[in-house]
Amino acid sequence: LNLLAIAKNLDVEFLGNPNQELIGISSLENLNNKKICLVIEKKYICESLKNAGAVICPKDFVNQIKNENFLISENPKLTFAKLSQFFKPYLTNPIYHSNLNLYLGENVSIGQNFTAGAGVVIEDNVAIGNNVTISHNVVIHHGVKIEDNVFIGSGSIIGSEGFGNVLDQESKWSHIAHLGSVLIGSNVRLGSNCSIDRGTIEDTIINSGVIIDNSVHIAHNVIIGENTAIAAKVGIAGSCKIGKRNMIGGMVGIVDHIETVDDVIISATSTVSKDLMESGTYTGIMPISKHASWKRIAFWITKLDKILKNLKYKRFKP
Amino acid sequence: LNLLAIAKNLDVEFLGNPNQELIGISSLENLNNKKICLVIEKKYICESLKNAGAVICPKDFVNQIKNENFLISENPKLTFAKLSQFFKPYLTNPIYHSNLNLYLGENVSIGQNFTAGAGVVIEDNVAIGNNVTISHNVVIHHGVKIEDNVFIGSGSIIGSEGFGNVLDQESKWSHIAHLGSVLIGSNVRLGSNCSIDRGTIEDTIINSGVIIDNSVHIAHNVIIGENTAIAAKVGIAGSCKIGKRNMIGGMVGIVDHIETVDDVIISATSTVSKDLMESGTYTGIMPISKHASWKRIAFWITKLDKILKNLKYKRFKP
Amino acid sequence: LNLLAIAKNLDVEFLGNPNQELIGISSLENLNNKKICLVIEKKYICESLKNAGAVICPKDFVNQIKNENFLISENPKLTFAKLSQFFKPYLTNPIYHSNLNLYLGENVSIGQNFTAGAGVVIEDNVAIGNNVTISHNVVIHHGVKIEDNVFIGSGSIIGSEGFGNVLDQESKWSHIAHLGSVLIGSNVRLGSNCSIDRGTIEDTIINSGVIIDNSVHIAHNVIIGENTAIAAKVGIAGSCKIGKRNMIGGMVGIVDHIETVDDVIISATSTVSKDLMESGTYTGIMPISKHASWKRIAFWITKLDKILKNLKYKRFKP
Repeated sequence: LNLLAIAKNLDVEFLGNPNQELIGISSLENLNNKKICLVIEKKYICESLKNAGAVICPKDFVNQIKNENFLISENPKLTFAKLSQFFKPYLTNPIYHSNLNLYLGENVSIGQNFTAGAGVVIEDNVAIGNNVTISHNVVIHHGVKIEDNVFIGSGSIIGSEGFGNVLDQESKWSHIAHLGSVLIGSNVRLGSNCSIDRGTIEDTIINSGVIIDNSVHIAHNVIIGENTAIAAKVGIAGSCKIGKRNMIGGMVGIVDHIETVDDVIISATSTVSKDLMESGTYTGIMPISKHASWKRIAFWITKLDKILKNLKYKRFKP
Repeated sequence: LNLLAIAKNLDVEFLGNPNQELIGISSLENLNNKKICLVIEKKYICESLKNAGAVICPKDFVNQIKNENFLISENPKLTFAKLSQFFKPYLTNPIYHSNLNLYLGENVSIGQNFTAGAGVVIEDNVAIGNNVTISHNVVIHHGVKIEDNVFIGSGSIIGSEGFGNVLDQESKWSHIAHLGSVLIGSNVRLGSNCSIDRGTIEDTIINSGVIIDNSVHIAHNVIIGENTAIAAKVGIAGSCKIGKRNMIGGMVGIVDHIETVDDVIISATSTVSKDLMESGTYTGIMPISKHASWKRIAFWITKLDKILKNLKYKRFKP
Repeated sequence: LNLLAIAKNLDVEFLGNPNQELIGISSLENLNNKKICLVIEKKYICESLKNAGAVICPKDFVNQIKNENFLISENPKLTFAKLSQFFKPYLTNPIYHSNLNLYLGENVSIGQNFTAGAGVVIEDNVAIGNNVTISHNVVIHHGVKIEDNVFIGSGSIIGSEGFGNVLDQESKWSHIAHLGSVLIGSNVRLGSNCSIDRGTIEDTIINSGVIIDNSVHIAHNVIIGENTAIAAKVGIAGSCKIGKRNMIGGMVGIVDHIETVDDVIISATSTVSKDLMESGTYTGIMPISKHASWKRIAFWITKLDKILKNLKYKRFKP
C-alpha cells in the first residue's frame, strides 16, 4: 500500500510522496518510517514525527509537523479507524465454517459471506443475515434473529433464557419458560463473553448500530436504541428501554424497567435506579479516598440523617 | 392444547369455552385470539382484553374483564410460569449427548434423562443426578457433584480452582491447589457464563432450590442457603455463608467471609462488607445525579469529616 | 507420602514420627488422623487437634498443641500452599492436547510440557512457552505471546479486539481494527471466563507473576505490573497502567488511562477514577444500611451541596 492508494481508498486528501510505502500503523512512541501515525491533538506534535512514514492529522497541523507525507482529515480519528481495517491480518486457521467445527441446528438460514469460528453452536430456527462473523465458542440459542454486518465476540451467549422466576406457596422458585427471542439489528458489534437473554413473551431487541464491549449482560425484554455504546461489564436488568445514542460507561448497573431517553451518557460504575428522561451526563459514584479517610467519611454518611436532625436542619424533608 | 386441558394440567379453575384452543402466550401489547395472556394487577385491565384467547387472573378480576375464557388463579404469575413450560419449543439440534460433541472424563456417573449441549466438558469423577440439563460449552471440572433437576446455562464453568494464593519471601504469589469440590443441590438453576470455584479443602456448596442468573462469580468455599435467588453479575468472595431465601440483586458484591441470615434482600449493586445478621432489605448505592451536580456532591463527601469537625459537631465519634 | 518425605520436599523442619503417612489435607472442622492440617493463628489451637495426622504451624505453637507430628514453618500458609500441590488429583480425561479436541491455527509455536483442555482454540501466529496449561474452551486469538509457566482458566478469551470505536458524521460507530496483541509474562495465572483485549497498535501487557481471578476484563493497551493480584469481576478500562504488587479487590472498576504506582491496595467494589500516585490502601464504597435508613441518607446526599450553602458553610469551595 502506498500513500496515494490509501488516500484514494479513504477519500481523503494527501500531501507528499504518492509512492511512499506504508506497511502498518505506528504509535507515537514507536515511530517507523514505513508506518503511518495519528496526531489528534496539538500537544502530540514533536520533533520525532520526522521519523514517521506519514502522519494523519487535520490540515492546520501540517505546517507545524516536520514530515513530508500526510493524510489530511478533519476527523483524523475516524480516518485512522477506517485505515486500521486495511492492516488487519488474514487468518488461515482455525478453519472457519467447516462442518466439523460448527454445531448447526435445523432450519437455520445463513446469508452470504458468513464466517464462524471453532466450537460455535447455532440452535434450531436461527436466522442470520449477510456479512456476519461469529467468533469461537459462541452459542446462538434457538430462534434468534441476526441482521446484516454483525460481529459477535468469542464466548458470547445469545438467547439464553431470562431470569424470570415466581415463588410458589412453599417459597420455592418456579422458572418461567422464556418464549420470546432475541433480535440483533444490522451493524451491531458484540464483545467477548457477553450474555443476552431471550424475552419472556416478546423479544429482547438490540437495535442497529449498537456496539457492546466484553462481559456485558443484557436481560430479558431489554430494548437498546440505535447506535448506543455499552462499555464492558455493564449489566442491564429486565425490561429496560435504553434510548438512541446513549453511551453507557463500564460496569454500570441498570435496574429493571428503567427507561432512558436519547443521548444520555452514564459515567462508568454508576447505578441507574431511576428513569433518565433528559439527555445529558449522569453520575453516581462514591469517590475513592485513602482508606483511613474513607472510614471516617463512611461513618458520617451512615449518620447523615441524624446529623441533620440534630442540626435542626429543616430546609428539605426526606 | 385447549382451555380444559390446561386447567386440568395446572389444577386450576377455568371459566368459558373448554374447547378454546390456545397455541401460546401473548403479552398485553400483542393480544391474539389463539393465545392466553396474564393480568396480574387491576391497572392492566382494559377494553382490548376482549381480543385475548383467554386470560389468567384472580377470581375478582373476572367481572371487570371483557372476555369469556379465564384461568382463575390466586397466584396468577405462578400459574403463568407453570403454563409457560407447555409452550417451550422442542429442539432437534444440535444433537444432545452424542459422543461426538461431549468430552467425557473417566468415572463419571450420570443419572436418567440427561441432556447435554454441544462442546460440554465433563472431567473425571463427576457425579450427575437425574433430569439434569447442561447447555452448550459448559465445563464441569473433576469431582463436582450435581444433584437432581439441575439446569446449567451455556458457557458456565463449575469447579475451577479458587483464587487462594500466598505471598512468598520475594513478594511472588504461590498458588494453593484447591482440593475441595463443588456440590450443587437439587433444583438449582444456573445462568450463562457463570463461574463457581471449588473449595480449598472443604466443598463450595450451592444448596437446593437456589437460582442464579448470568455471569455470577461464586468463590471457593462459599455456601449458599436453600432457595436463595442471585441476580446477574453478582460476585461472592471466598468463604461467605449466605442464608436461605436471600434475594441478592444484580451486580451486588459480597466481600470474603461475610455471613447473612435467612430472608435477607440486598438491593442491586450494593456492596456487602459486613455481616447481615437481621432479615430485611439492605441497600448501599451512591445515588445517581446529573454529572455537574454529582461533582459538587462528591467534593463535599470527601470533605465530610472536616466539615463536621469545623461545625464542632460532637454527637457521634467516628 | 510420609512426614519425612514431605518435610524434605518442602525443605522445612518436622517433629514426630517420620513414617507418619499423610494422604491429604484436612480443614480444622474435619480433622483426620491420616491428614495434615494448618494452624495459622493461636486462636485455632484446640483440644481436637490431637485427631490430626500432623499439624503445620510456627515453632512456638508446638508446645501448646496436643499432637506429636508437626511441619514447622515460620510462614505456615506458604508451606500449606506448596504442600497442597502434592495432593492435586491426576486427571486422565478429557484427553488433553489431542488433535481432535484442539483447534490449532498456522504458525503456532508451543514449548515443552504443554497441556490443553478440550475445545481450546489457538489462532495463527500464537507463541506459547514451556509448562503452559490452557483449560477447556479457552480462545487464544492470533499473535498472542504467552511466556513460561502460565495457567489460563476455562472459558477465558485472550486477544479479542478492543472496544475502540469512533463516531462518524452520522453518529454511527466506526470500529478500529486492533493491530496490537497481548503479551502474557511468565508465571501468570488467569481464572475462568476472563477477557483480555489486544492493543490498538502496541500490545496489552500482563507482566510476569500477575494473578487474576475469574470474570476479569482487561481492555486494550492496559499494562499490569509484576506480581499484581486482581480479584474476580474487576474491570480495567483502556490504556491503564497498573503498578507492581498492587492488590485489586473484587469488582473494582478502573476507568481508562488511569495510572497506579507500585504497592497500591484497592478495596473491593471501589471505583478508581483518578490516578493513585502514592502507595497505600484506597477505598470508595457507599456503606450498606437497612433500606429505610439508606433512603433517608441518599436523600440528604443528593442535597449535600444545597445544605452546605444554606448552612453558609464556607471553609471549602467545590
